[in-house]
Formats: sequence, C-alpha cells, structure tokens
Amino acid sequence: MNIEERLVASAGKVEHFLGQILTTDDKDILSLYDSMRYSTLAGGKRIRPFLTLSVAEMFGASVKDAIYFAAALEMVHTYSLIHDDLPSMDDDDLRRGKPTNHKVYGEATATLAGDALLTGAFEIICAADLPAETKVSAVRVLSEAAGAEGMVGGQIMDLAAEETVPSFETLVKTHSLKTGALITASVRLGLLAAGVTDEHTTHAVCTYARHIGLAFQIIDDLLDVVGDEKELGKPIGSDKEEGKTTFLDFFSPEEATAYAERLTESAKAALSSYENSETLCALADYLLARKK
Amino acid sequence: MNIEERLVASAGKVEHFLGQILTTDDKDILSLYDSMRYSTLAGGKRIRPFLTLSVAEMFGASVKDAIYFAAALEMVHTYSLIHDDLPSMDDDDLRRGKPTNHKVYGEATATLAGDALLTGAFEIICAADLPAETKVSAVRVLSEAAGAEGMVGGQIMDLAAEETVPSFETLVKTHSLKTGALITASVRLGLLAAGVTDEHTTHAVCTYARHIGLAFQIIDDLLDVVGDEKELGKPIGSDKEEGKTTFLDFFSPEEATAYAERLTESAKAALSSYENSETLCALADYLLARKK
Repeated sequence: MNIEERLVASAGKVEHFLGQILTTDDKDILSLYDSMRYSTLAGGKRIRPFLTLSVAEMFGASVKDAIYFAAALEMVHTYSLIHDDLPSMDDDDLRRGKPTNHKVYGEATATLAGDALLTGAFEIICAADLPAETKVSAVRVLSEAAGAEGMVGGQIMDLAAEETVPSFETLVKTHSLKTGALITASVRLGLLAAGVTDEHTTHAVCTYARHIGLAFQIIDDLLDVVGDEKELGKPIGSDKEEGKTTFLDFFSPEEATAYAERLTESAKAALSSYENSETLCALADYLLARKK
Repeated sequence: MNIEERLVASAGKVEHFLGQILTTDDKDILSLYDSMRYSTLAGGKRIRPFLTLSVAEMFGASVKDAIYFAAALEMVHTYSLIHDDLPSMDDDDLRRGKPTNHKVYGEATATLAGDALLTGAFEIICAADLPAETKVSAVRVLSEAAGAEGMVGGQIMDLAAEETVPSFETLVKTHSLKTGALITASVRLGLLAAGVTDEHTTHAVCTYARHIGLAFQIIDDLLDVVGDEKELGKPIGSDKEEGKTTFLDFFSPEEATAYAERLTESAKAALSSYENSETLCALADYLLARKK
C-alpha cells in the first residue's frame, strides 16, 4: 500500500472503533451522542490516530492494543475543533464543508459534546488491555499535551494574537502548543502502547513529531496563499482577510517551502537509525507535498 | 472539632493544594491561569473533596495521598460550574456573590479555563504517589462520573427540561447524573486512595453518597421556597421564576423535609457496620440541617 492507501485504511479502522464507542442505549442522552458522533465521525485525515497506530506498529504493538489510545487522540482533537468553532471563539459556520456542531445542535449541546469527548478520551485509555503503568503514562502524556501548558495554552495564545501581532518566536510557540503538543502526544502514545519507554527512542520519535507538526502548519499557511481553491475547497487568502499572523508574514512562499522541506528532512533524519520507519517517512513527505 | 470546623479545616487544605497546582511561570498563558484560579479558589463548601478526604481517612489513608484525588474532584466540579454559567447554558452573571468567570475573563477564556481544569483533573490524579492500578481506577471512575453517561448527560437532561416538563422519575435521574454521579465518585476516590476495593464496602459507601446527594438537592429546592433570603444570600422563589421543575412541584415543603430526612437516615444506616463513620454521619446531618 502507498501512504494514501495506508491513511485511508487506518482512518477506516479508527472511524469504526469510534463509532462503536460513541453509542448509548439511554434515550435521555441521545441528542448528546448525536452531537458527539456528528463531529467525531465527520471524516478528516485522522493524522493523529495514524501516528499513534504507525508508531505502535513500528515498535511491534498490535493495532488491537493501540487503537484505544488512537481513539483518545482523535476524541481530544475533535473536542478542540468543536470548542474552537464556537461563536465566542473562532465563530466558524463550516468545518470540512459541513455546518459546525453548534450550527446543528446549538451552542449548549456543542459545548457539552466537546466536554464529553474530552472526558471520554481518558475513559477509553483506561479500557485498553495494557499494563496499568502504561495507561497512567498515557493519561499523563495526553493530559499534559491537551491542557493549560499544551493545547489549551496554545488556544489562549491564539486569542491573544488577535490583540497583539505576535513575533516569529511567539508564532512558533503558539503552534507548538496549539497543534504540536497533541501531534507529539500521538507518537508518544504509540510508543507507550508498544511498551517503549527508553529516553533515546522517545526523544528521536518526538523530534520527528515536532518537525512534521511545524512543517504541517507552514504548509497550511502556504496553501492559504498559493493553493488551488478547488483542491483546497475554500477561498485562498482567508488568513490575511481575517488579519491572522502566519508564517507568510515572515517568509516568502519560496522560503516557507524551503523551511518546510528542511523540517521534513530533519523529521526523517531523526528516525534514520530505526528499522521499519518507511511509513512515518512517507507520511512526512505526504504532508509536505499535500495540496489540501 | 465539630463538623463545621472540620469542613473549614479540610477546605483550607484543599484550597492551599489547588493554589499550589494552579501556577505557571509562563507569562504567555497567565490569563488562562488567572481565570482558572478565579473560579477554583473562590471558596464554596468543598463538599466533594471533603468526602474524598473523609472516606480516605475513615479507611486509613493519609491526607497526603488522597489530596490529589480530592483536588481532581474539585477541579471537575469547578469546570462544570464555569461551563454551566456560560451565556449559552444557564447564562448566570453571579456565582457565590461574585461575577461569573465569563463576566470577568470573557466567554472564550472561560470556556478554555473550564477545558483546562477538566484536563488538569486527570493530570493531577497521575501525580499521586499511589499504585498505578489505583490511579487507573481513579481515572476510570472520575471520567465515567463526569462524562456523557454521568454529569454531562445530566446537563443535557437539564437542558431538555427547559422544553418538556420532566416527570418525577426524570427529575430524580437528572439530579443523580448531574450532581449525584460526582458525589458518588468523590467517595469512590476516597476508597481507592485507601486501597479499599471490596464490593461490599464500595456498595455501602456509594449508597451513603447516593442518598446524601439526593437529600442535598431536595434541601436546595426547599430552601429556594422556604429559606431565609439573608442567610441564603439570594432571593427566594428564583427556581419558580425561571420555570424550573423542582422537588417542590411534587411535594409539599413538609413532605420534602420528611423525604430528605429519610434519605439522610438511610445514608447513615448504610455505614452502621463501619467504625469511624462519625464524620460522614455528621456531614449527612449537617447537609440536612443547613440553611444555605
């Protein structure tokens, strides 16, 4: 399978698993589950669970064991999108071409669906058939990455950027918290599922994650300037229109491309001493070359 | 010490511990921490952590071990209040006589502060110096109690009650999810901190928690009708004015009092075969007799 086929196959497994988790027999809370399912089962690249499953497999774990952690990552990611889209936050009406959660279910239910997904992520980690030490480590890594010193901290910095134009360093830090922390947590949970705890390997795989995470954001910013509206499925130039500071405020498109290429090479280099790293390397190249 | 002195002493310890946790050196996320601290360190009875610490002590655990779990309970409770007060939810301007979180910090920061407190609750459980099995059990119990089939489910039912007048059974179920689940989780985390996992004791202590939880809600509803505005610190009759269905729609004040008394007796009876249950019994009586 090439990387695109691998991504599709992995996304299918994750979607199936999430669909099984997010069910209830209790009709009194059906609307909550409908809202949770609406956003969680809405497609998307499923990069985070793919990272968890790929790293787990690279180090010898089975999908059966790692998929609980992969699902937890996707639930946290989905909750963050639901809350981020709320009127008091980014106030977005569309997400992946569909009305945002609060547009369909109302703000109150959307807020609660996000809360329930975040809570459920920690519940599903506990359900994995893995040693207790592993599960505690997974809860610790995910909560640190998702919390005040991680993703939520990045969102606060993003809000602050609406008031004060951020410096380059602040922009990098915002992204490393807002999206980088969860991408790094994705590979760390894959390592944990495989029972890998040695510092050297953890450092190497986290270096890979940090570099692809930043490259991902640079390509996002680049596509908003030089992308193809049809392929992208949204008008280009929307970042500038919304007054957002992006990497294109610091680099020309050529410089940004070169920067993302360097980061991708560094990501792959971090894995050079490991066997079976083809999938992760192919993912890094795929994310660099993507047109949407 | 009498029960009121015990409550004050326990609240002081919990507040001190929470104050230590909720700090950061990172000035970029200070506003987030300010918002988290504003609501978390705003006083209140601290019933949930008191239950965790009292049960833990009753079964031989030290406060030092149990306080991580107690803090997690209070963080989840505080997040639920912040989100519940949001304009899209209950739209409350005041909480314990102070402006609500979003009135001070804005809706976006308040939403994120709630998210960070919920996430942080699972992080602080992992920091306890207790066996990994215990911490996994604590994460499982807390996430189940706080999530879609627990507190968040109760909030969804509460929203539905604005559309359709609930039956008595639905009212009881709403409260048992919205507030009862977290009160039961409080005693369960106390048992876990003390290493108690036997079913018989867990059942007895959970029965106690379920009964005081329901009695607590009945007294809340009663005080809104027959309470003293000065002691209560808010106008009486506000539930009726807001069109809320309460236990007083099904009972006379005398019947409601008798019902709460029976629940309190059942709560205490559930602990009758255990030594050192004086604190929990005194708490049950205190919550029944409270005037605010």
